[in-house]
Amino acid sequence: MPINLTEPTELLPVPGMRLGAVAAGIRYKERRDLVLMELAPSASAAAVFTRNAFCAAPVIVAREHLAGGAIRYLLINSGNANAGTGERGLADARASCAHVAEVTGCEATQVMPFSTGVIGEPLPVPRIRDALPALAASLKEDAWIDAMRAIMTTDTVGKGMSRQVTLSGGTVTLTGIAKGSGMIRPDMATMLAYLGTDAAIPAGELQAMLSEAVDTSFNCITVDGDTSTNDACVLCATGASGVQLVSDEDRRAFREVLQAVCDHLAQAIVRDGEGATKFITIQVNSAGSREEARLVADAVAHSPLVKTALFASDPNWGRILAAVGRAGVQGLDVNRVSLHVGDVLIAEHGGRAASYTEEAGKRVMAEAEIPIRIGLGRGTASATVYTCDLSFDYVRINAEYRS
Amino acid sequence: MPINLTEPTELLPVPGMRLGAVAAGIRYKERRDLVLMELAPSASAAAVFTRNAFCAAPVIVAREHLAGGAIRYLLINSGNANAGTGERGLADARASCAHVAEVTGCEATQVMPFSTGVIGEPLPVPRIRDALPALAASLKEDAWIDAMRAIMTTDTVGKGMSRQVTLSGGTVTLTGIAKGSGMIRPDMATMLAYLGTDAAIPAGELQAMLSEAVDTSFNCITVDGDTSTNDACVLCATGASGVQLVSDEDRRAFREVLQAVCDHLAQAIVRDGEGATKFITIQVNSAGSREEARLVADAVAHSPLVKTALFASDPNWGRILAAVGRAGVQGLDVNRVSLHVGDVLIAEHGGRAASYTEEAGKRVMAEAEIPIRIGLGRGTASATVYTCDLSFDYVRINAEYRS
Repeated sequence: MPINLTEPTELLPVPGMRLGAVAAGIRYKERRDLVLMELAPSASAAAVFTRNAFCAAPVIVAREHLAGGAIRYLLINSGNANAGTGERGLADARASCAHVAEVTGCEATQVMPFSTGVIGEPLPVPRIRDALPALAASLKEDAWIDAMRAIMTTDTVGKGMSRQVTLSGGTVTLTGIAKGSGMIRPDMATMLAYLGTDAAIPAGELQAMLSEAVDTSFNCITVDGDTSTNDACVLCATGASGVQLVSDEDRRAFREVLQAVCDHLAQAIVRDGEGATKFITIQVNSAGSREEARLVADAVAHSPLVKTALFASDPNWGRILAAVGRAGVQGLDVNRVSLHVGDVLIAEHGGRAASYTEEAGKRVMAEAEIPIRIGLGRGTASATVYTCDLSFDYVRINAEYRS
Repeated sequence: MPINLTEPTELLPVPGMRLGAVAAGIRYKERRDLVLMELAPSASAAAVFTRNAFCAAPVIVAREHLAGGAIRYLLINSGNANAGTGERGLADARASCAHVAEVTGCEATQVMPFSTGVIGEPLPVPRIRDALPALAASLKEDAWIDAMRAIMTTDTVGKGMSRQVTLSGGTVTLTGIAKGSGMIRPDMATMLAYLGTDAAIPAGELQAMLSEAVDTSFNCITVDGDTSTNDACVLCATGASGVQLVSDEDRRAFREVLQAVCDHLAQAIVRDGEGATKFITIQVNSAGSREEARLVADAVAHSPLVKTALFASDPNWGRILAAVGRAGVQGLDVNRVSLHVGDVLIAEHGGRAASYTEEAGKRVMAEAEIPIRIGLGRGTASATVYTCDLSFDYVRINAEYRS
């Protein structure tokens, strides 16, 4: 059961983008597993990809084609990751793009391919080829919900959000969808997100805004510290509204909705994390630098001991302090460290706070949403990371998945 | 059930060291939980401590007293870690040393204190004080087994080993004991190890040899990546045999037995890891540097996805490659990476090896001892890390521990 997350029933169309989804039989039976997104010729695109050195074939090809500019189509399949497939995988990703080009009349280099699903198995390109004519013929603006559902793998609910914002030139729409059960399962999950807007934004500015938004959203979530081979987040600006970002105020306003949609989608992935029963926000404040704050937040977020204590609703604050202490902050003065869970001050001056009671700790740890706030007493920088607890179901799902 | 590990029934006395263990009632009922080790006045001592910034009060005091030299007693209690206890914890650790001094006639600064057990609760110093006279009166050379058992907390078996080695001046003994269920549970576990020899070795040389031996033994094991607040490893050389290390050959021979005992004790901790059902050796070869090799070995060893696949005996090699890929090695060429599990070549050239069969993978993954060998194709450096799988029991034990 995802934590405080329901599937959207409506997502706003983005003028200048048409979508479609069909059942190509790539792995799943009787469900849609192939998505095509078409961008208006005027569109610009930006993307952020996995940093995993073992990135999948489609990531290599998508990155290459994006660098050439003039992207017209995004092709996304679920059920097969086309990862760990060597030279053949690259050829298959390129062949898929070529098939889109044949059917639509664009160049193969104007197609970005994406795959998510089982690792190490060849992509069934003929099935994709056979499904493309009907898919291309079905494209329409109002199909974001279909696309959202077709890109799911182990997700228990679809993830999407739309926002509109009025800029000096008029109102623009931003719609985004994402899939992923928390960056886990490199073989079967993958974090994928697609955002579209009808604002007119040059590619360079679009890339800068996306990178900034991803930095504090998709790059700040973790279920188990594993980064997929296929992760990608794409933002397209079709320009169909004719509205440009002409002032700092326009840019600020657009950035704000972009951040809101990225934050929602990223947190939705954690809320639907494998076996998750609690949504944890770890905020580290008064750090000497953002890197230092992030180091501490990650150490706490990745600690299996902390995560099992959260699962058990056990106010086992010693585990949190121990994770802070081993994060690798040089010269950390433990006497200046403070720890809050919810509104309860648990530790300060290197030990348990005088005002702390076990009852207060148990009360805040029993919630489904647990905010952890750590002060380092070294400066003014901060960082926030979102994660979930480590439950029996996490082990069950990941141990039993292939067997 | 520990993996291929049984408790020793006999450990050799070390002339110049006397030990005792009593039930002081610190936390456990009807079991010994307080150990005193006495060193001959001629003894030298060396130690390696946790790097956790939130180190426990006894670690601070032990480090301070060791720097002063002339250590005569080690006092170890189980059941209470005296960690996260602030100023009071420091005062309690110093008071414990002062009580040893009163009873034995040494200086308080000649006592090193160690604690392991529950975090955040005050150390019951009066119980230690009351138990000390009988404990000091009971000291004898042949009590290593008693000490081994008294320092246990969540261990399911005691861990110890003795070796003798003949040097140019005669034969010396090395005996070591350790406790810990895999560096996990900062609140209740802690890795503690005590080694003694009757060789005569100056403190500086002893420290260098211990640091070197720990680097590839205790510092190369991980159950969950969490480092305790109380970890310590102490090596004492009483000099009672009168045998010194007078040649390079003597030094090499002594180093060899020291490494063997450290390796055994460190690996014993993993074999008795919380919920462990498999013992995993991760060897990374042909790396550009030892640091790089270690980075990759740690990424694989800490990956919950890899560890749950190992628990399930699932040859899910995509998870191992994905962990290698995200380890942070700059410019890693995935086409040069190779992966063996046992004698089976699983992946090379960025994908599944042509010779690989799922049957062969399943066969090696079904073993209780799983060696994973990763080649990076970048140089000649290597590193080995020992870990265990991630099972239901790990979550159960750590979620239910305090509740």
